Amino acid sequence: MKKNTFIALLFIASSSISAQKSDEQMLKEVYNSALTNSKSYAWLDHLSNKIGSRLSGSAGAEKAVVYTKAEMEKLGFDRVYLQEVMVPKWVRGEKETAYILDNKTKITVPICALGGSIATPKKGITAEVIEVNSLKELAELGKDKIQGKIVFFNRAMDAAQIEAFHAYSGAGDQRYAGAAEASKFGAVGTIVRSLNLRLDDFPHTGAQGYGDIPESQYIPAAAISTNGAELLSKTLKSNPKLKFYFKQSCVQMDDVLSYNVIGEIKGSESPENIMVVGGHLDSWDLADGSHDDGAGVVQSMEVVNIFNNLGYKPKNTLRVVLWMNEENGLRGGKKYEEISLLNKENHILAFESDSGGFTPRGFSIEGDAANFDKIVSYKKLFEPYLIHSFVVGHAGSDIGPLTSKKIIKMGLKPDSQRYFDHHHAGNDTFDAVNKRELELGAGTMASMIYLVDKYGIVN
Amino acid sequence: MKKNTFIALLFIASSSISAQKSDEQMLKEVYNSALTNSKSYAWLDHLSNKIGSRLSGSAGAEKAVVYTKAEMEKLGFDRVYLQEVMVPKWVRGEKETAYILDNKTKITVPICALGGSIATPKKGITAEVIEVNSLKELAELGKDKIQGKIVFFNRAMDAAQIEAFHAYSGAGDQRYAGAAEASKFGAVGTIVRSLNLRLDDFPHTGAQGYGDIPESQYIPAAAISTNGAELLSKTLKSNPKLKFYFKQSCVQMDDVLSYNVIGEIKGSESPENIMVVGGHLDSWDLADGSHDDGAGVVQSMEVVNIFNNLGYKPKNTLRVVLWMNEENGLRGGKKYEEISLLNKENHILAFESDSGGFTPRGFSIEGDAANFDKIVSYKKLFEPYLIHSFVVGHAGSDIGPLTSKKIIKMGLKPDSQRYFDHHHAGNDTFDAVNKRELELGAGTMASMIYLVDKYGIVN
Repeated sequence: MKKNTFIALLFIASSSISAQKSDEQMLKEVYNSALTNSKSYAWLDHLSNKIGSRLSGSAGAEKAVVYTKAEMEKLGFDRVYLQEVMVPKWVRGEKETAYILDNKTKITVPICALGGSIATPKKGITAEVIEVNSLKELAELGKDKIQGKIVFFNRAMDAAQIEAFHAYSGAGDQRYAGAAEASKFGAVGTIVRSLNLRLDDFPHTGAQGYGDIPESQYIPAAAISTNGAELLSKTLKSNPKLKFYFKQSCVQMDDVLSYNVIGEIKGSESPENIMVVGGHLDSWDLADGSHDDGAGVVQSMEVVNIFNNLGYKPKNTLRVVLWMNEENGLRGGKKYEEISLLNKENHILAFESDSGGFTPRGFSIEGDAANFDKIVSYKKLFEPYLIHSFVVGHAGSDIGPLTSKKIIKMGLKPDSQRYFDHHHAGNDTFDAVNKRELELGAGTMASMIYLVDKYGIVN
Repeated sequence: MKKNTFIALLFIASSSISAQKSDEQMLKEVYNSALTNSKSYAWLDHLSNKIGSRLSGSAGAEKAVVYTKAEMEKLGFDRVYLQEVMVPKWVRGEKETAYILDNKTKITVPICALGGSIATPKKGITAEVIEVNSLKELAELGKDKIQGKIVFFNRAMDAAQIEAFHAYSGAGDQRYAGAAEASKFGAVGTIVRSLNLRLDDFPHTGAQGYGDIPESQYIPAAAISTNGAELLSKTLKSNPKLKFYFKQSCVQMDDVLSYNVIGEIKGSESPENIMVVGGHLDSWDLADGSHDDGAGVVQSMEVVNIFNNLGYKPKNTLRVVLWMNEENGLRGGKKYEEISLLNKENHILAFESDSGGFTPRGFSIEGDAANFDKIVSYKKLFEPYLIHSFVVGHAGSDIGPLTSKKIIKMGLKPDSQRYFDHHHAGNDTFDAVNKRELELGAGTMASMIYLVDKYGIVN
C-alpha cells in the first residue's frame, strides 16, 4: 500500500469513527435532556387538565391553539404562526342514553354517538336488534332481515394480533362505514362494539362517515362499551326479539375557522429543505385526549426544547406543526399540504407522533427503499435506548396528504398494548400517561430528526 | 460432490428448515394461546382482589399457598406439593404517622416503615433532620453532625438511566443499609426517599437490614413519598433547624412455618433434567402485589396452561415453583436449593418472572458464554413478538441460590418504565396490570422454555 493511500484510508477510518462517536454522544445527550430537563409533561398537564378535550371547533380546541402558540413563542423559533383552516364542527349535545329491553327488564348500557353521526329523534329509537360480525355478513342478510332494525356490529378486535394497531385496522370498517352500509338495507340505527381490546365500561367514539348515501337516508350510529356489547350479544342469544333503545342529540354545525399552529426554525445551511415534526391538536370530546394526541403535540414541541438545551441548530429548516382536525376531517393536514404546494416548498422529512405517549419501540416508515435502508442504518445507535423496531408502515394521518419531490415520512411507534384501552374514550386522561415514557418518545423523535438533519436523505 | 454427500447435505438442510418452520409455528401457537385462551388474568384477579397482600407469615400468604396449590392441581401436573420453609414474620401494625415541624407549622407527610425495621417508641420520635445523599456523605459528616438526629437519605433514582432497574440499583443502598450505617454515627432514626422515579404521594416500603450492629443500636427506618421528600428537602433549606416527627409500630415476630408451592410434570425423555419456572408468592403488605410478584406467579402457572392447550409434553421435567419470602429473607429460594442438593437434582434451566407484568421486551440471562450464545440464537424466532433484548444480567432473586452442574438462569425482562411507580407501594394493584401485557409475558416464557426443552443446553 502506498503511503498516501494509507494515510487517506486512515483519515477516512478515523473521521468515520469520530462521526460515529459523536452521534452516540449526541443521542446520549438528547435522551439525557429528554429525561431530565423536559417541558413535555408540564405542557401535557396544562393541555389535559387546564384545557381538556379539544374537538375541532370547540372552545377547548381554540384554547389549545392559543396556549401552544404562546408556549412555542417562548422556545425561540424564528417564527411562530397560525395557519387558517376551516374545520367541521360536530357537537355531541347531551349525554347519550341506551338500554336493552329484555321483555320487561330494562338494562342500561354505556353508549356514545360516533363522531359525525346524526341524532336520534328526540324520543330516541326503539327497535329490534340484529347482530352481525362484518359488513359482508350484513350484505348477505340483506333487506329482509335488516329492514326496520338496529344493526349491532359486534366483531371484536382480534386479540391474537401482537400489535394492537393491526387488531384495530381489522375491526375499524364496522365503525367507519357501518351506518352507511346498514342504511342501504333499511336499518334504523347502528350500534358498534367499541374498538377496545379490553372488557370494560367505556364506550369509544371515533369518526364515521355516511359516504355517498343521500342525507335523507342517514341513520344514527353509536358505539357501545365492550362489556355492553358482550351483554347485548348474550341477551340476544336468549331473547332474539329483545328491543334496544338509544337516544343521542349530536348535531353537525357549519364549518368554523380554526388553525394549524406552526413554529419554524430556519435551516442554517439548507433552509429550502424542510423537516416537519408534529401531532394533532384536536382530540375527541369524551376526555382530555392525553394520549391522542396531546402526547404527540408536546413531544413535537419538546424536540425543539431538546435542541435548545443542547445548543443544536438544524442545518435544514425545522417546523413543528400542530395540526387541527385529524379526528374528523383531516382538514389541517390537507391545508398544510395545500399551502406547501402554493409556496413550492420542499419537504425532506415529515415525522408524526400520533400513536400514544407509551414507551417508544421504533419507527413506522414510508419512503423509497434507499431511504428506508438509510434510516435502518441508524438502528445500532438506538439500541441503548431500546428502540428496535424499524418497519415499513403508516407514518401518520396528518402527514398523509404531504407530497414532495422526495420525502421520508415516519411515525413514532410506541408500545401499543394499552393504547386502545384509552383511545377515543373517557379514560384518555393525563393519569394514563407516564412521564418517562412520554419523554423517551420525545428523545427518540429528536434523535432521529438530528440524524436526518445531519445526513440528509437519498435524492 | 459425491451423490451421497449431496443427499446428506440436502437432508440436513431440509430437516433444519423443517425444524425452523416448526419452531415458528409452535411460537405462533404459544402466543396465540397466551392471548386468547389464558387463565393468568383471572388467577391474578383472585390473588389480588380476593386474597390481597401476602407478606410472609401473614394470613394472605397462607391463603395464597392454598389457592395456588388448588389451582395447580387443576392443571394436570404429575404432582403438586408444598415444600416447608420457616419464614420471618414482620408485622407493620397501625398505620405510620409523620410530620414536619417547621417552627409552629405541622405538615403531615406520607411515610411507611421499611420492612424489618423496629418500631419507634410509642410516643414517636421527634428530632432535627440531617439530609444526606449517600452513605459516603453520611460517613464524611460523622458523629458530630449526626448524633441525635434523624438522617434523611434523599438521593433520587437517576432519571437519566434508560432502564429503570439500573436507576433502582443505583439508589437502593440508602434503603437497605441506611439505618445500620446511620446508627453507627448516633442517629435516632432514618427517613429514606422512596425508590420511585415519579413524584407522587406513595411511600414505598422494602427490605432493610441492620447488618451486624448490636440489637441495642437498632434505630427505626421509614420511607417517605417522593413528594414528601421534595417538601422536606425544600423546607430544610429554609429552616435547617426544623424537626421531624414519626411514629411506627412494626414488630419482628418469631419465624413461622410457610411453604413453597411446587407443581411438577415428569419429563418424557430426560426426567432427571429439571427446568424450573416461577415467581414469588409473597408480596409486601401495602397493596395486592399485583406486579410484584402476582404477575410472575400467574405467568409461571400459565406456562403449563399453554402447554396443556397445545398438547405439549416437555421432554425434561418441568417444575412450576412459587417461592415464599423473596421480599424479606429469600428463605423459599434457599430452601428450594437445600432440598435440591439433598436430592442430588440436576437443574438445566431456572426461569423467573419478577420484574412486573408489563410488556415483555426480552431476557436477562446468567450462564456461560456457550449457553448465552445458544439462547441468543433463538432471537430471530422472537422478532414477531417484539422480543428483542437478550442481555447478560440478573435473572432472579429466588433462583439466585440454585446451583447445578450446568444451568442457565433467565429472568423475564418486561418494559421497566412504570415498574417503580408501583413497586412496594400502595398502588401495586390489579388495575395497574394490563391483561395483554401479562399474557404476552407468559407467552414469552412458554416459548423460551419450549426451546430450551427441545434443544437442551450446552454441557
